[in-house]
Amino acid sequence: MIEQYKKTIQRFRRDIGVEIDSELLFKALCHSSFTNEIEREDRESLESNERLEFLGDAVLDLCVADILFNRYSVSEGIMSKVRAIVASEEILARVSKERKIGTYLLLGKGEEKSGGRERDSILADALEAVLGAIYLSNGLTESKKFVYNILEEYIERAIKGQLLLDYKTALQELTQGLYGVRPDYVLKKEEGIPPDNFFIVSVNINDEEAACGKGETKKGAEQDAARKAYRKMKIALEEKKGNEN
Amino acid sequence: MIEQYKKTIQRFRRDIGVEIDSELLFKALCHSSFTNEIEREDRESLESNERLEFLGDAVLDLCVADILFNRYSVSEGIMSKVRAIVASEEILARVSKERKIGTYLLLGKGEEKSGGRERDSILADALEAVLGAIYLSNGLTESKKFVYNILEEYIERAIKGQLLLDYKTALQELTQGLYGVRPDYVLKKEEGIPPDNFFIVSVNINDEEAACGKGETKKGAEQDAARKAYRKMKIALEEKKGNEN
Repeated sequence: MIEQYKKTIQRFRRDIGVEIDSELLFKALCHSSFTNEIEREDRESLESNERLEFLGDAVLDLCVADILFNRYSVSEGIMSKVRAIVASEEILARVSKERKIGTYLLLGKGEEKSGGRERDSILADALEAVLGAIYLSNGLTESKKFVYNILEEYIERAIKGQLLLDYKTALQELTQGLYGVRPDYVLKKEEGIPPDNFFIVSVNINDEEAACGKGETKKGAEQDAARKAYRKMKIALEEKKGNEN
Repeated sequence: MIEQYKKTIQRFRRDIGVEIDSELLFKALCHSSFTNEIEREDRESLESNERLEFLGDAVLDLCVADILFNRYSVSEGIMSKVRAIVASEEILARVSKERKIGTYLLLGKGEEKSGGRERDSILADALEAVLGAIYLSNGLTESKKFVYNILEEYIERAIKGQLLLDYKTALQELTQGLYGVRPDYVLKKEEGIPPDNFFIVSVNINDEEAACGKGETKKGAEQDAARKAYRKMKIALEEKKGNEN
């Protein structure tokens, strides 16, 4: 570990309240833009958090699956939907912000300048890398406790169907911020006979179709469309930022 | 558990060489077509293997990630590619056949008649459900041993890039079986200057483009195209079988 970051790592470990090996935690906080820069400047080889993030992503998926399997008697379909929500970039970035992971991140100068410290994808990835470090330091049981601790509230809300609603709100915030407009939802199709019917709804932004959603209720289809449009727009924004960088 | 299957479960447990709770193992072998039939006939509620499969899928992903992280010093990109291959339906179904899981599966009559016992998706799902039962019975360490035991050879081959080659062979076997023809590979594009160049290759079946692949070598692009075409055809075949059922 680079000597000058020792104190930061100690502080982070205290803040997050879990015993984590210092070297692993340091690695978890090293964004690739930082390690690339170190390599260029000092010709010192330093590993970024990408491998830990890959491991942590799998730890997260199993922890959430285990929690859902053992604590909630819900179907496979619901488990799958709930996990997709709580392990999404949006929620992980939110948790990362709550835990102030951004303030501890080690970024390259370019990434720092272009606002990487607030970027959802970087924050979500860092949280996964930290979880990978927790898993390697303490095993699965401690990882599960940590995941339950940070995601319990989101899991509860997702099970109750409350978290899905956030996508319509999130999309509206995004389009109003970018274009000063609200998304329009248009019912495109209704098929089948109740209770086996379903709805197809499109969401239009600036009179252009941004995405289509399907659901057993009109509201569900709207939420599905909002989620897809939101994801598409976030990816496009990330790419744009990446290109400007 | 239904009394008449007790002996089968005991035999399976012996064959697979892992201590697994009998009730969980029984559940892991219950395809939804079987539990639906029992419910219809006896009005007895019986849970299928779907929840266990969801859990087992996450156990598998973490076990493979852990093995790759700790035993191989490969990049995140390679880990991701290797896991996508070894945890694919094709490989899991192959392992399931090696372990004769199909012979122990409990299927509904319709599914049995339409060849469900040999269907890749059902076999791969059952293997994941068995892994879910192993995890709940013995924890992650035993699960990792089991996964390493069944997938070591495939992981080694995937790391060496040998497993990718299988897709061209697999696709050829499929098209010759179905139409009596071999796939054609056509180079469509070559861009960039070495070593940063890449190739786009299409694979044609019966003079129709089935998929396009990209790669750093022509062979790599062909393999990528073959993999995509193979997956598409398998999904189409599964759907066709599902509709006939």
